[in-house]
Amino acid sequence: MFTSRPIGFVSSPYRDTSSVPKGLGAKHAAEGVLKILPELEAGLTHIEGFSHLIVLWEFDRSEGFELIGRPPCDDRAHGVFATRSPRRPNPIGLTVVEFLRREGSALHVRGVDMLDGTPILDIKPYLSGIATESIRRGCLEEAEARKR
Amino acid sequence: MFTSRPIGFVSSPYRDTSSVPKGLGAKHAAEGVLKILPELEAGLTHIEGFSHLIVLWEFDRSEGFELIGRPPCDDRAHGVFATRSPRRPNPIGLTVVEFLRREGSALHVRGVDMLDGTPILDIKPYLSGIATESIRRGCLEEAEARKR
Repeated sequence: MFTSRPIGFVSSPYRDTSSVPKGLGAKHAAEGVLKILPELEAGLTHIEGFSHLIVLWEFDRSEGFELIGRPPCDDRAHGVFATRSPRRPNPIGLTVVEFLRREGSALHVRGVDMLDGTPILDIKPYLSGIATESIRRGCLEEAEARKR
Repeated sequence: MFTSRPIGFVSSPYRDTSSVPKGLGAKHAAEGVLKILPELEAGLTHIEGFSHLIVLWEFDRSEGFELIGRPPCDDRAHGVFATRSPRRPNPIGLTVVEFLRREGSALHVRGVDMLDGTPILDIKPYLSGIATESIRRGCLEEAEARKR
């Protein structure tokens, strides 16, 4: 196995978890900056060709893990692998952001939901989506139906 | 930072990297099994509600990293964060799979591109896609245009 190392840090408007929009219909339109370490800047070559990026990051303010928990959309307990809970065996978070512009080793993006100062583990180009009509979204979908 | 731990292992038809479909127009329709450790089975509770899963896994047969490399779709060099190269600062791979069925702690899925025996780091529900018409895919798109 490997020991994680930050490739950079997130600059975000969110200082604590209570300020991050969560649950049903939460919109993530906040702008932020992915500040990549200057010595890794060459790794960003030609990233400008992509409109969206997948950001993997570390839940660095979360401890331990819980196999079962309650997601914001439901009052039934769900397995950790069926939710985006921060308390996971490997504390890795994933956010898809819209890429706005690059300034050297700083990537300006829209759609951050990470806390300010969050360590970034990886960035990958977002290459394709699953057709919306073929996605089933478990408890989120049921909660939306109940709300209607 | 954290030290990664496997939550399970991939059972895949691919024994070596040369057998995995790569590059322009590669289709990933292979079926495989995500064999989650039995002691983590509770973490899969209610995962049946999702049609697609995001699998994070470790490039365990890759060593070190390269900031610049040549992806299969292009003969120009690209930054590692603009490609899916296995040689990354944190050797984390990402695959979106279609969820077929669960048998205890084994998840049968379609769309694996990992090697047989690959350690799994995390599973997350796939919640939403970016509308296809708004995705720009850098060198992949240019390579497709050249081929036409």
